[in-house]
Amino acid sequence: MRAQATEFLRALRLHRETGPGTGGPESPVDAARALRRSARRISGTLHTFQSLLEPDWAESMRPELAWLSGTLALEHAYAARLERLLQALHRLSGSTPAGQAFPARPALPERGSLTVGAAKAGALLDRQLTLARTRAHSTALQALGSGRFHAVADKVAVLASEVPLAPTAAGADPRPLAAAALGRLTDAVAALPLVTAGSPYNSEALVHGLSPDPSPHPQDAPWHQVRLLLRLHRYAREVLHGTGGTALPGDGREPGPDPAEVRLLAAGEALDRHRDASEAAAAAAQAARTPRIAPATAYALGVLHADQRHEVEAARYAFQHCWQKETVTTAP
Amino acid sequence: MRAQATEFLRALRLHRETGPGTGGPESPVDAARALRRSARRISGTLHTFQSLLEPDWAESMRPELAWLSGTLALEHAYAARLERLLQALHRLSGSTPAGQAFPARPALPERGSLTVGAAKAGALLDRQLTLARTRAHSTALQALGSGRFHAVADKVAVLASEVPLAPTAAGADPRPLAAAALGRLTDAVAALPLVTAGSPYNSEALVHGLSPDPSPHPQDAPWHQVRLLLRLHRYAREVLHGTGGTALPGDGREPGPDPAEVRLLAAGEALDRHRDASEAAAAAAQAARTPRIAPATAYALGVLHADQRHEVEAARYAFQHCWQKETVTTAP
Repeated sequence: MRAQATEFLRALRLHRETGPGTGGPESPVDAARALRRSARRISGTLHTFQSLLEPDWAESMRPELAWLSGTLALEHAYAARLERLLQALHRLSGSTPAGQAFPARPALPERGSLTVGAAKAGALLDRQLTLARTRAHSTALQALGSGRFHAVADKVAVLASEVPLAPTAAGADPRPLAAAALGRLTDAVAALPLVTAGSPYNSEALVHGLSPDPSPHPQDAPWHQVRLLLRLHRYAREVLHGTGGTALPGDGREPGPDPAEVRLLAAGEALDRHRDASEAAAAAAQAARTPRIAPATAYALGVLHADQRHEVEAARYAFQHCWQKETVTTAP
Repeated sequence: MRAQATEFLRALRLHRETGPGTGGPESPVDAARALRRSARRISGTLHTFQSLLEPDWAESMRPELAWLSGTLALEHAYAARLERLLQALHRLSGSTPAGQAFPARPALPERGSLTVGAAKAGALLDRQLTLARTRAHSTALQALGSGRFHAVADKVAVLASEVPLAPTAAGADPRPLAAAALGRLTDAVAALPLVTAGSPYNSEALVHGLSPDPSPHPQDAPWHQVRLLLRLHRYAREVLHGTGGTALPGDGREPGPDPAEVRLLAAGEALDRHRDASEAAAAAAQAARTPRIAPATAYALGVLHADQRHEVEAARYAFQHCWQKETVTTAP
């Protein structure tokens, strides 16, 4: 349980160092990102180890942390989605010089080398996603100034000095709970179509690409779920890891990065890419439903949608690849 | 040289058995296909072994055979392209039941389960490619009734009884010529970006997918060239193989198919798919330039174009896979 307290303290320290109004944050964007990350991390740890904590307190804490990290995540998500889509439009137009990084603020990409359709599609996406981002920014600012946020911050501050434990938790072993989190992850991965995903160019991700159903691809949901469970597993692993009390295979005191951790991170990154590409594809499809757009714009959005769905497929392939290596070293 | 004569005779017999007006062809379509194949095969053999043949005769023969096989190929190509595109539209709409073969004449696919955009895109492609196919059919019929065709047929008949050899050809070894054909193939394959092609989801085929240049993808041309050279190599190999005079590795008298031949066929099929997908993608892009189409139609054509470009990439991956195995067993 000391491991958890350490983890919470660490997250809180991060939060305090970069939080607004405490002086010295690198930038408001960095501060918001750090806040979002620590909220997510505390929330994940609460989720896994909830049965060791005071039930009412944990129940009241989790939705507040979820609200905070969700609200803070949106602005960044819209900005990243726009950047991803504009980058793809340039790649599809053969106009991005290889190796040249795209500017961080993609508000003014040079459009001279794009076709009319690609340029109009880019302008349409820019308009729609910038508007969404601006709204998300206002919402996040309001949230950070709200009483609700200050209440969460107070609770996290309390947490740093004393973790409210359940009466039965004294001396309890956190490892079965971490093992249960890994079990949920393993079960969810086992339910994924990994054989299909491991076969390159299986064309699975674009099935229903022209489906009349405008809702997000149902085939993506199990992958998004695994993404969340993988994160919970990683946090739980860090908690145990921090105490040094549990020697996971591949773990140890040797210098250099832990290879199991490196692979978990790679698998997580593949699933992040999966989520990003899935949402970018949906944004392109959504933009194509804008009334009165030109056929050339719609055509470019169609190509873009299919391109992002293939990124989804590529991310699944990459995850499958990581995971096959993974199971060799992180089996409990 | 007897091997060549045998090969020619075989092709001619095939041609006679299935040619129009000689009774008993299975269908006009089959007859045209067999004629096209034998013309292509004779033409390929002429190309590889030309230096052993009477120069004027060979020079006059080759363009006639190319004209014949080219003219006969078009109708089939348009029909196959339409079928491929309509099948893809159904797959992309999630409406083709797995394992159910698409009807051979795709004139009336059930469109109830397609979105408006996919249905309109299918109707547009149907209109455009059926028109092209009808024109190609008329041209082929005219060609088969023309004096030019009868002149070619007469020449092939002469060929069956006596191959016009060059004065220097008596006793010459055809194997160096076959080896030269293999050398041209090997060089052309070596120039392909096989490392990229072997890396799944490299996204190479869709670069320039939105390029303003309406011409066919220049990146496809070296692959089309390899496709032709692979066919020439296969024909030359059959000529030598037929005599039993050259024991290629993996070759032999054992029962069952020759594994080297099987892999050559697989590599050739991958390149056929590459060519078909490349041309289907171009047809979708071309259809999207039709004036006054609805945005939903253009969007569906964009998705379809990108899907076929990914088929191009998948075919390159498959070829690379075959070829790596290939070089183990067919190196001269």
